[in-house]
This record gives sequence, C-alpha cells and structure tokens, in this order.
Amino acid sequence: MFTPTVQKLIDELAKLPGIGPKTAQRLTFHLLKLPPEEALPLAQALVEVKETVRFCEACFNLTEHELCPICTDARRDQAVICVVEEPGDVISIERTHEYHGLYHVLGGALSPLDGVGPEKLHLAELFDRVRSGEIREVIVATNPNMAGEATALFIAEELKDLTSQDSLRITRPAAGLPMGGDLEYADEVTLIRALTGRREL
Amino acid sequence: MFTPTVQKLIDELAKLPGIGPKTAQRLTFHLLKLPPEEALPLAQALVEVKETVRFCEACFNLTEHELCPICTDARRDQAVICVVEEPGDVISIERTHEYHGLYHVLGGALSPLDGVGPEKLHLAELFDRVRSGEIREVIVATNPNMAGEATALFIAEELKDLTSQDSLRITRPAAGLPMGGDLEYADEVTLIRALTGRREL
Repeated sequence: MFTPTVQKLIDELAKLPGIGPKTAQRLTFHLLKLPPEEALPLAQALVEVKETVRFCEACFNLTEHELCPICTDARRDQAVICVVEEPGDVISIERTHEYHGLYHVLGGALSPLDGVGPEKLHLAELFDRVRSGEIREVIVATNPNMAGEATALFIAEELKDLTSQDSLRITRPAAGLPMGGDLEYADEVTLIRALTGRREL
Repeated sequence: MFTPTVQKLIDELAKLPGIGPKTAQRLTFHLLKLPPEEALPLAQALVEVKETVRFCEACFNLTEHELCPICTDARRDQAVICVVEEPGDVISIERTHEYHGLYHVLGGALSPLDGVGPEKLHLAELFDRVRSGEIREVIVATNPNMAGEATALFIAEELKDLTSQDSLRITRPAAGLPMGGDLEYADEVTLIRALTGRREL
C-alpha cells in the first residue's frame, strides 16, 4: 500500500538484525521527514564503507588495506594471538595499551540456535595460523556469556587436538568481580568465578 | 579508534531514533560483513526515497507528486477529513475500504516531554483547511494512547474556538474492546471505555 520506493526502504531496513517491520517503518518515516542533507549522509557513509573498508586477510580486523595496521606492525609480538568476537573488541583491548601481540577476529560466537556453526566464523583460519606459525600463546578473549564460553571451549579443544606442541599456552582472561563493582550486586555466576579464581595477596 | 569511514557510518546510524551507539556499532559490523550486493541496496533505497518521495502539500500523506492520490481523487468526499498521526495510519484505514473522505497526516502526536509541541505537527495547516474549506466533519483518529488522546483534545478545543459553524462535527473513533478480544484480558481503561460507550442492541 506504500509507494514501491517507500516499501523498498522499509524492506531493506527490516533486513538488519534486531529491526522488525514496525521499527523499519518508523525509521523510514523518520528518514522521510528529515531534510535530504541530514538523511543522505547515511547512504553515503554506507557506500563509502563498502567501497573502502574490508577485513584484514590475516586477522579479519577492519582495515582499508590488505592487512590491518596491527598485523603489519613489526614491533608487535608475532607469537601471541588474542582471539576476539568482533572488531569492536580489538578496539577495547587496544585502549588498555597493555597488549602487544596480534589479534584474530572470529566475526561472532558459536550459536547453533541462530544457525552460527564453526563454518560461519573465522575458525579454520585461526587453526591455520596456529599450525603454520610460531605461536607461543593463544588468548581466547571471547565474551564471558554463553555463546562466548562455548566458543572458547571449542577453540581450546581443537587447538589441543591440533598441536602436539607442549609449548603452546591457551589462556582465557580472568572472570571475576568488575573493578568499581559492588559485591552486593554481583550475580551468582560472577561471584562463583571470583571465588574459585581467588589469588594470594 | 575505528577508521574514520567506519566511525562515520556508526555515527549516522546512531542518529536514527531508538538506535544508540552500541546498536549502531552492531549494525555497522553486520553491514560490513554483508557482500556489497546485499548492503548497497539499503543506501540506494534511501537515496531513491529522498529523490522521489515527498509529502502531499494538502494532507502531508506520502506521495511522488505535488498532491497525493487521495487528495486528487474527485470521488472522495471533500467535506470529511480524517486526522491521523502517521502515513502508516492512512494505509490501515484505507485497508478497511470503509472510509471515503480525505486525510490529514499530523506527522506525530503532541508530546511536550519529547519536545513535540503543536508547532512541530501539521496542525496549523489542518486548521487552515477547516477554516477555508467546506468541511462537514473532522474525525480525529490519533492513537488511543496518552499522546494521541492529548492531541485529539487539543484539536477539538482549537476547532471549537476556530469555527462558529454549528454544522462542523468533530468526532473520534470509538474506544472499546477489540473484536476477537477477550473480556478477561482487557485492561481496565479499555473496559471502562467499552462500558461507558455501550450501545443499544
């Protein structure tokens, strides 16, 4: 019942994850009401991103070249790989200035119910890197939620099968109470993890 | 920390209503992962909408011409105006095939807390239409929620002040139990409305 042009925009927006037909319609009306100079930069930004941004051929981080700036930086420790789910996680870890190894961006986490099996993630490429390189440590920094934990376990199992090197460490960032947090408000799982992972003072 | 191109797309998406920076980042990663032929139609649809679709100069419904197909349809009753919030509401009412008058799309509902005062809606244009035309009835079909009810009251007050014509009817669609609904599950306000608005059988 909308004009085909309007319906097309609604349909395209509704294809985005987490955006249903009602939200797509609301966004379309919003975009229709905006003056062109406020609405068109979105289209332009999308075109530019698709034209210039791609995934690093080694680690699948975002880049405008074949390899990302981290993979080409000779000062980074080439023997340590930190595995994360999304490019945003690389940015979070880089912000700490505490990590000096390389990354591997999976592009998500295992979630069979949503149709995300191992073949949908950059897992084969990770195993190739570990198999062919001189890797000393793989830090599996997937999110501390159900999908992330499952992915971490899967990676650990595969890497153990894959490598007979006793020298390869497979680690996972500590789970526990967040700094500045409040014991009273911590959920049970976090508290259990914090207690079992307790350290000498 | 993202490349400027990626950050630009995140920023543009975050400007949309109901989409915060985290969702904008998630949508951007999704768009980055898509092959260009699946991502670019969104940009194209947006450009096309902004190029071809505009608001009817009489009733502010969506149109690709100066006036919308309903306003230019001589068979429609030119003396009845149905006031709605959004173009989607026109489509819902047209789908009934029971209404044969004209429309007036306000572009939203009064919501002072969100900064939507009368000057943000097409209210002045509605009052102009009523003042200058031979209007017999104005059906105020804003949504039956708080903002819609407030808008309906505002319109009724203004129209009563504006017109000395006793012949102008200002009406509002009946509120009551939805067909196929269940009395047991009806909320109190709906039930009160249904009882006070009861009709002879």
